[in-house]
Parts: sequence; C-alpha cells; structure tokens
Amino acid sequence: MKKQRVIITGRIRLKDFAPDYCGGRDKEQTRKKTDQRGRHIGDLQQLLYANGHHAVLLIFQGMDASGKDGAIRTVLHRVNPAGVETANFKVPSAEESAHDFLWRIHHAVPRHGNIGVFNRSHYEAVLAERVLGLVPEKTWRRRYGQIVDFERMLVANKVLVLKFYLHISRREQAVRFRERLANPEKNWKFSHADLATRQRWDDYIVAYEDMLNATSHPAARWHLVPADRNWYRDHVVAGAVARALDALKLKWPKPAEYLSRVRIGK
Amino acid sequence: MKKQRVIITGRIRLKDFAPDYCGGRDKEQTRKKTDQRGRHIGDLQQLLYANGHHAVLLIFQGMDASGKDGAIRTVLHRVNPAGVETANFKVPSAEESAHDFLWRIHHAVPRHGNIGVFNRSHYEAVLAERVLGLVPEKTWRRRYGQIVDFERMLVANKVLVLKFYLHISRREQAVRFRERLANPEKNWKFSHADLATRQRWDDYIVAYEDMLNATSHPAARWHLVPADRNWYRDHVVAGAVARALDALKLKWPKPAEYLSRVRIGK
Repeated sequence: MKKQRVIITGRIRLKDFAPDYCGGRDKEQTRKKTDQRGRHIGDLQQLLYANGHHAVLLIFQGMDASGKDGAIRTVLHRVNPAGVETANFKVPSAEESAHDFLWRIHHAVPRHGNIGVFNRSHYEAVLAERVLGLVPEKTWRRRYGQIVDFERMLVANKVLVLKFYLHISRREQAVRFRERLANPEKNWKFSHADLATRQRWDDYIVAYEDMLNATSHPAARWHLVPADRNWYRDHVVAGAVARALDALKLKWPKPAEYLSRVRIGK
Repeated sequence: MKKQRVIITGRIRLKDFAPDYCGGRDKEQTRKKTDQRGRHIGDLQQLLYANGHHAVLLIFQGMDASGKDGAIRTVLHRVNPAGVETANFKVPSAEESAHDFLWRIHHAVPRHGNIGVFNRSHYEAVLAERVLGLVPEKTWRRRYGQIVDFERMLVANKVLVLKFYLHISRREQAVRFRERLANPEKNWKFSHADLATRQRWDDYIVAYEDMLNATSHPAARWHLVPADRNWYRDHVVAGAVARALDALKLKWPKPAEYLSRVRIGK
C-alpha cells in the first residue's frame, strides 16, 4: 500500500489504497472532532437554506455494508431534517425504465437551499448494470461521458456535487455480514442478494475502478474514503462536506431595504 | 380561559384556549423531557424504517411565526435525516394548478418506513384560499369532506396522520416579528406579505376554527397546541409523536427463515 490519497485527480488503482487506513489517528479523539464537524455542518446548512442560492448533493457509492447509511447518519446528525432530501434508487419502475437512465436521477436533485443525499445513484448504471450484463458494453461506456456532462450542468447551476466512494475490504464485509446475521436488530439489513453480489467482488472492483477513473472530473471529483473503520470513514466525509460548505463563504442574507421602515402594530 | 384541551374531539372555540398555557410546568425540566422524547422518537424511527409497513405524516399549520419550523426541528432532531421527507408547499406551479388541490399533496405523502412532514399543507386550501377569496365558498366548504376522505384513505393504507395546529396569540406574533426585524440572522424569515396576513388576523382565526371543527375526524384528530412558549409547544408535539409511534408497538422484523442457514465465506 503506497499511498492514501483521498481526492482522485489522476488515474488510480484501487489495490494501492488500504481500506483500513486511518492515518494513525486516535479513535475517540477523532470521533469528537467528527461530532464538532457535524455541528458545524448543521450551522452551515442553516445559512445554505437562508440564502437559497446553492444546493449540495452528496453521492454515496460503495459495496454492501461499506457504511453508506452510517456515514450519512453521522455526518448529517446535526442538520435540520427539513433541509435534507434523501433519495434511494430502488429497482426502476416501468415508468422509470421507459426513460433515459438520468431521468429519475434528475428529478431527485435537491432544490437550492437544501442538502440532497443519494444513497447509491446514477453510478449504478455503470456498476450493477455493467456487472450483471443488463446493458451492452457500448451503452455503459457511453454513460461515463453522459454522467460527466450531467454533473457539470448541475454544478454550473449551483448544485455542489460531492462524491464519496466508500472503500471497504472483502474481509471487513464478511465481518459485517456476520454481525447482521447474529444481531436480531440488524437481521433486516441482510438480504440473500447481498451474497450473490459478494461472489462477484472482483468484477465490481474493476467496475468501481473504471468508474472512478472515468468520472472524477474537475467540477465533481471522487473522494476515495477508506471505510474499514467507521470512525475514520465518517471523519473523512464530514471533513469534505464541511470544507465544501465553508468554501461557499455563506453569510446571512442582507436585509431588504424596506425592512428598516417596517413597524409592527398592535 | 376555561380549559386547555389538546386533542379536538368535539366542537371548539379558539378563544377558549390560552396560547400561553403551559400547565404550570418548569421550563428547563420540560426541555430535558422533550429532549428525551426526541431521542425516543429517533429510536422508534429506526424501527419504523426497518419494518417498512407504516408511514407517519406530521402536518403543521399555524399563523406566521407560530413556530412550525422550530417544532419540526426540535421534535426530529434525533431522527436520521434519511428517514424524513419534508414538503413545503409553495405557490402552485402552472402544472399543479391544472390539477385538483390534493394532487401535489398526494405526491408528497411519505413512503412506508419514513416520517413525512408537511410544513403547511392541503389545509391552506381552506385557509389562505378562503380568506383571500381565491375560491368561492361552495368550493372551500366542499373541501372539508374531500380532505377527510383523503386522510381516511391514507390512514387505512397505514399512513399515520398527526395534525398540529400551533395556537399563537396576536401579541406574541408581534414580538416575534420584531425579533426577526432586529436580528440580522432572522431578517430573511420576514417578508412583507406577513404583514398583510397579520392584518387579516380575525378572518384567519375564523377560518382556522371552522377547519379544526370540520376536519378533526376519528382517523386523524387535530392537536391544538398552545404555542406562545416554544418549549411547551415542542413538548406537546414531541409527546404526541412519541405516543403515536409507541402505539404501533413496533418490533425488529423477524429474520427470514433462510438466514439461519447462511454462511459467509472468505
């Protein structure tokens, strides 16, 4: 394992990145910092909402049990739920299948002022659909460019796009699956389909690697997040979200001129 | 002020209810209890999501500055944002106006497993639309029954409907408007239209009273929430939400039979 780079700007190979990387950090201290970042994100969301000029879209991809739900929960735990829109893209309906693959995605893009979360996303169209052979190679290859164009359009229209690939090891996935089977409060998270997907692990890694290399464009880079340790994963994601919101340099909206003349009667 | 009844089961007059009622409770102790209730609601939402058999729809109505945003924020502050769907119904689009008044409302009903929040709702069709004379009396009167039928259908289809009318005094609204004008962080919440609405206060009270009496049906009663004190308002709402979720008696889903036979390979 040579390096641990988080934002993908050039060609990468996934095997060069350690899923259990944590930069030698202390778990408890890091958790406290993550909690602070969460509060900060909560404050910034209020400003985002008050201004209503930008939206933020967080896209999460990763193998089963890589911790997408957990990261979303931790990073947004101090954000007013009224300012968050979450989308889960299930198996497409007949209506959705009758449209291009970005049609239902576009509909779920958050409105200005809100934070949107995609727990899986349009990227499944170059991951599961590729691995399962649902579309021919010509089709999924063409989608890389279509996705980049789509995201560029969003960013140009003030939708900040932040993409997180949660990088988990096959060994850690086994640990988490066993936990889901052993713990009655987690049984419901396990589905038989997860095993079939696990058997195609190597195919999925190839698909993820190609996806990361083809779609980490300057307007919306991929964050490669080491995800074997929950606490480090959450720390990286919270940091990226906080930094991106900070960079907007949001201020409370200037009062309209007329406000200075308003008097409230009895 | 004769009584302070919270759930409307018979005919009421709003002037019989004190907006500043708090049952002689202590503010700090009550806040702590509300926070506990919030955590409990967070736990119950996990069960709601895991089971995926019921949805919960919280409907908030009340005058400007009655605290709809604040109540939503406090009551749901421990709920995973991914399990919450919030709808704000703005001025209808041309497309929405070309449909019946419940069309866009129906679309925003939460999916099973989620908590939905309507910050204002279909009830504006018998409030603002009535007071502003946007529809003839025959039309808005007919809507009471249509709303009851619609909500009954939702409840029968496992969407728990909880309705909260936040009861604020005209005097307290003035205090809050002045605060919005004085505080740069709150300026953005104030709009000139709020003043025009305030001038029609008595007309709105009549419309609210008629609405509460006509639409507090057994499947979805109105909660009349004294709202001059934020902390008491949040306490009442959190209590009603927690009790309603408790009454579902949710348990972790029983594991599928096959799970006992699953082995996770290397």
